[in-house]
Amino acid sequence: MTQTPAFILVRPQMGENIGAAARAMLNFGLDRMRIVGPRDGWPNERAVALASGAGRVLDAAMVRDELNAVCEDLNYVFATTARARDLTKPVMTPERAMEHARALTASGQKVGVMFGPERAGLENEDIVRADAIISVPVNPEFPSLNLAQCVLLTAYEWKRQDGDVPPEVLELAGARLAEGQDVDKLLERLVTALDARRFFWPEHKADSMRANLENMLRRLPLTETDTRTLHGVIRHLADRPVRED
Amino acid sequence: MTQTPAFILVRPQMGENIGAAARAMLNFGLDRMRIVGPRDGWPNERAVALASGAGRVLDAAMVRDELNAVCEDLNYVFATTARARDLTKPVMTPERAMEHARALTASGQKVGVMFGPERAGLENEDIVRADAIISVPVNPEFPSLNLAQCVLLTAYEWKRQDGDVPPEVLELAGARLAEGQDVDKLLERLVTALDARRFFWPEHKADSMRANLENMLRRLPLTETDTRTLHGVIRHLADRPVRED
Repeated sequence: MTQTPAFILVRPQMGENIGAAARAMLNFGLDRMRIVGPRDGWPNERAVALASGAGRVLDAAMVRDELNAVCEDLNYVFATTARARDLTKPVMTPERAMEHARALTASGQKVGVMFGPERAGLENEDIVRADAIISVPVNPEFPSLNLAQCVLLTAYEWKRQDGDVPPEVLELAGARLAEGQDVDKLLERLVTALDARRFFWPEHKADSMRANLENMLRRLPLTETDTRTLHGVIRHLADRPVRED
Repeated sequence: MTQTPAFILVRPQMGENIGAAARAMLNFGLDRMRIVGPRDGWPNERAVALASGAGRVLDAAMVRDELNAVCEDLNYVFATTARARDLTKPVMTPERAMEHARALTASGQKVGVMFGPERAGLENEDIVRADAIISVPVNPEFPSLNLAQCVLLTAYEWKRQDGDVPPEVLELAGARLAEGQDVDKLLERLVTALDARRFFWPEHKADSMRANLENMLRRLPLTETDTRTLHGVIRHLADRPVRED
């Protein structure tokens, strides 16, 4: 049974940040939150206010006093840290970590990711509990991610790797791409109009000028509508008198 | 000449968000900000306050009234949007977009990424100006990214693809991994102690039990220190009397 990772907030301080973390999770389809020893108790009004649409993540959250109590059923636990620690432990980018998390959950393992309190981050005694460390590759001269940002990036990496979204599509907004013959006709009109006006000159360059023009039109991802628009543009430029009003 | 992408804030409203965007950029090593028509004028005290350590991004920002004025020198411009638009345009994930941006900048092209105002996002007339659209693959049932979050994810994707950070390392914290002979000796002590206590029983399973034990020890990424610790553990368990005080 595949189960999405649980995100574990360890001793979070500000309710606002718990709410923002819930939103960041749900933005990328994650809804299993666990909370250890929230400073201001539970439930927390400010967390609910900030979570707004993501309130159901808070409603369903497991809240305990001790880290071990929220890790009991987990097979693999990551700890997010900014600084290097004096511990022997695998350190992964969010990318590699979520790749590993996907492999684990696909084989039925339950995965958790710990996030530390706002100021200090996780203590070494929390990190000892983890199988591996996640470290976001921030600019070493300016590493200032906050709790909700760290949650956001990790959740994004989880979602990014699901392969559901094609990396690139041409949004056609109801249009369809021009067929070869649409471009043929456009090219013919353009070349005829230009030729009549001695555009292809000097003579010995005429062939390569025509080829360049064709190459441009073939290379552009024109829609059928675009080709009709361009027919009109050429016709007006070439044939219509300038209005005198 | 490789130049990192310019991030263009189009008609941003709250100074706080401009400051937060500057921080998000600098977290991932980006420092070229351009701002079009900031609602509350420029400079903006609240932007400076929120940017704190990233103030130099604001100091160096190009600020203009019109979008075209900040795009003049750019070869390729992305527009970030949440909703699909009624425009024929390539739509890319942040991943693909920053991959493309890296290819463009590597060949000396100048790249920009537009981000819309907080509430409404970019207008269609802004998006027409772009070569392609970036759409973050958020949960369609809960797509609530704010301006600074969108900047953060895009900047993260830029940085993620630089290949500077190994996806996974074993942090050894000064330790060194055990050598084969360290594990040999540990295994020998363990097997001898267990054998003396008839652990490998019944007889016909003894070989596979020994193999499983060895497989476990060989599979664990033990340091040399770990093997010494485990020698002590075995010795104490096997040979030392329980304290009676």
